[in-house]
Amino acid sequence: MPIVTLTSDFGLRDYYVSAMKGVILRTAPRVRIVDLCHDISPQSIESGAFVLQHSALEFPSSTIHCAVVDPGVGTGRRALAFTSRDHVWVGPDNGLLHFALQAADGFVYAIDPDRLENPRLSATFHGRDVFAPAAAHLANGRNLSDIGEPISDPQPLRSTPFQPRESGIDGHVIHVDHFGNLVTNIPRSAIESLGDPLHAYVGTAPYAIELKRTYADVASNQLLALIGSAELLEISVNKGDAKRRLEAGYGTAVRIEKQPI
Amino acid sequence: MPIVTLTSDFGLRDYYVSAMKGVILRTAPRVRIVDLCHDISPQSIESGAFVLQHSALEFPSSTIHCAVVDPGVGTGRRALAFTSRDHVWVGPDNGLLHFALQAADGFVYAIDPDRLENPRLSATFHGRDVFAPAAAHLANGRNLSDIGEPISDPQPLRSTPFQPRESGIDGHVIHVDHFGNLVTNIPRSAIESLGDPLHAYVGTAPYAIELKRTYADVASNQLLALIGSAELLEISVNKGDAKRRLEAGYGTAVRIEKQPI
Amino acid sequence: MPIVTLTSDFGLRDYYVSAMKGVILRTAPRVRIVDLCHDISPQSIESGAFVLQHSALEFPSSTIHCAVVDPGVGTGRRALAFTSRDHVWVGPDNGLLHFALQAADGFVYAIDPDRLENPRLSATFHGRDVFAPAAAHLANGRNLSDIGEPISDPQPLRSTPFQPRESGIDGHVIHVDHFGNLVTNIPRSAIESLGDPLHAYVGTAPYAIELKRTYADVASNQLLALIGSAELLEISVNKGDAKRRLEAGYGTAVRIEKQPI
Repeated sequence: MPIVTLTSDFGLRDYYVSAMKGVILRTAPRVRIVDLCHDISPQSIESGAFVLQHSALEFPSSTIHCAVVDPGVGTGRRALAFTSRDHVWVGPDNGLLHFALQAADGFVYAIDPDRLENPRLSATFHGRDVFAPAAAHLANGRNLSDIGEPISDPQPLRSTPFQPRESGIDGHVIHVDHFGNLVTNIPRSAIESLGDPLHAYVGTAPYAIELKRTYADVASNQLLALIGSAELLEISVNKGDAKRRLEAGYGTAVRIEKQPI
Repeated sequence: MPIVTLTSDFGLRDYYVSAMKGVILRTAPRVRIVDLCHDISPQSIESGAFVLQHSALEFPSSTIHCAVVDPGVGTGRRALAFTSRDHVWVGPDNGLLHFALQAADGFVYAIDPDRLENPRLSATFHGRDVFAPAAAHLANGRNLSDIGEPISDPQPLRSTPFQPRESGIDGHVIHVDHFGNLVTNIPRSAIESLGDPLHAYVGTAPYAIELKRTYADVASNQLLALIGSAELLEISVNKGDAKRRLEAGYGTAVRIEKQPI
Repeated sequence: MPIVTLTSDFGLRDYYVSAMKGVILRTAPRVRIVDLCHDISPQSIESGAFVLQHSALEFPSSTIHCAVVDPGVGTGRRALAFTSRDHVWVGPDNGLLHFALQAADGFVYAIDPDRLENPRLSATFHGRDVFAPAAAHLANGRNLSDIGEPISDPQPLRSTPFQPRESGIDGHVIHVDHFGNLVTNIPRSAIESLGDPLHAYVGTAPYAIELKRTYADVASNQLLALIGSAELLEISVNKGDAKRRLEAGYGTAVRIEKQPI
């Protein structure tokens, strides 16, 4: 039986995640459920997409990824199911599954809740009422075409890419991790053409930040930049918390300059 | 082998939950353990009962639910085991399992720790020393009567029900979810007989709150009321946090009036 | 197939834990993964060692414990694998696995990443690139000697033991639990020779704290001391939070006196 991973912004203090698990195990008793992440910042589609992108494909092929960051629950937004990169993806049509959609294999389906044999359709909890049942039915071997209809226009992720400029790069923080590291949308390739030390503005404040290989390359409590395990520029504090130190967060502008500021 | 779900107020930063898992897997190696919830507010029996009520029965029949919100640990309070609604329930005798007890099927048993073949009985951690071993033994096929003695007077949940009045309804917040939504003890049936907009006092402050179907039915950062997925009145802020906005929390009075305030 | 437990300071809001799970399931598809704890205080090796010590051995023999609290990631610190007490242990060579190392059974190995058939070796995420693959290979039946070389000098845990004095005991807080209970490094045996009430300084402030058996032995919101489930002295508040009440935390000095202060 395949693995079903669960990703959400539900946190772990409510009945939301466990209701989804119950529905899945009741429908597909032999499924292996793995929590991918339930602490996506509330309603942060870009952050959910980031976490999915950097962990989902570590799982074995045929894994079913069921993801719910869903500020549009109860509106007309569609629920998607499709295959991509030998994995199966279930989630709202709001950009959350963007990176998988870009390599979708065959049709993308809009789930029809009436085909899920589920008696409930609440206005606020499609994790329990739509996405979990859909993932369970797919785990039981039902086809995508059994639970929905093909669509041609899934929604892209709304996000601002990094911008190269003659004198540097403009980007922003797309994720703040548990340690307070600031993950930006600036990839290794864009950074490696620039000199070192980096001259960076985080928000509106200028910092001279050295680009290092790992945290311990600077003294405790010193700022550094590095290429993190997602192959993106991160701004960090060794054994400290860059989010607090720089008063930065999701969306904070990060501007890299070739010349000292 | 059956599923054992775990519910507690232990959080996830200690050895408490994992010690329970270790005990269960050592005693009943093929059990499937599912975390139902470990972030019940510390010692909040009513909140634990709420989370259990709205997720436990989603699981397949024969699931064993082991729940520990246990401010009376180490006192004379009894440890219960019983069946109800085709599930098995293990937890302290303090009202936490109230909704399952109301439909108990056969005798309710007080667990006798001496019958659990467990060498330890600490004064502070019966999750590890009593409840987890009891759940594991039941998963191994032992009978309820093997591990305890029938009792006739399990403790009810101490909570104040909602009160209909001529001019409205009095209730209170029984759960604050991860998003800051305020879940009240006022059910759909009580609300549907009232007009719209609701005129509500949350705490002592008056608000005109429209009853909507889902969050996105109002603009971002606007207050709304809705019937949540637990079929109870919730007070919410679209893409925001009603707990913070209204400075409300567990126990805050919610008073609904038919007439404008 | 054996169980693999995961312990880390990664928290649950990132892709770190799930990337490790994906790597393990892709390499060793039938492994049962159990989260032991992911909320170790960031970079707190002593706290991680404490949590491991009090839960890992509850698991069945042959369980593989993969633990990552790793402030030295990307430096020359070694990655260890060894057996102890019929369990298998994988983690950084920084004292985190100290209590298991003390009873190591046979050689202790330094993992050679080149033998893990893993294409990646990031500078910041050896959980994904070294420790998870090592655990998965061991779960697949590979020998310790297949993935590393024996070493003779694993690093001890740097911590200050409690100190008996003529007039009492000096210790400190080694863990603050989810409820705010202050767990000290003072064991039951050292306490039982002293009188009751204990006369204690927490930090620099004196308190008369009675030694009780369990929380409910004092009124709500009263201070107490007890021997917790780890067999260590804890300072607690019944239905309250000793951390906040005493403004104490990890490392706070706890001084016990025989005579009133």
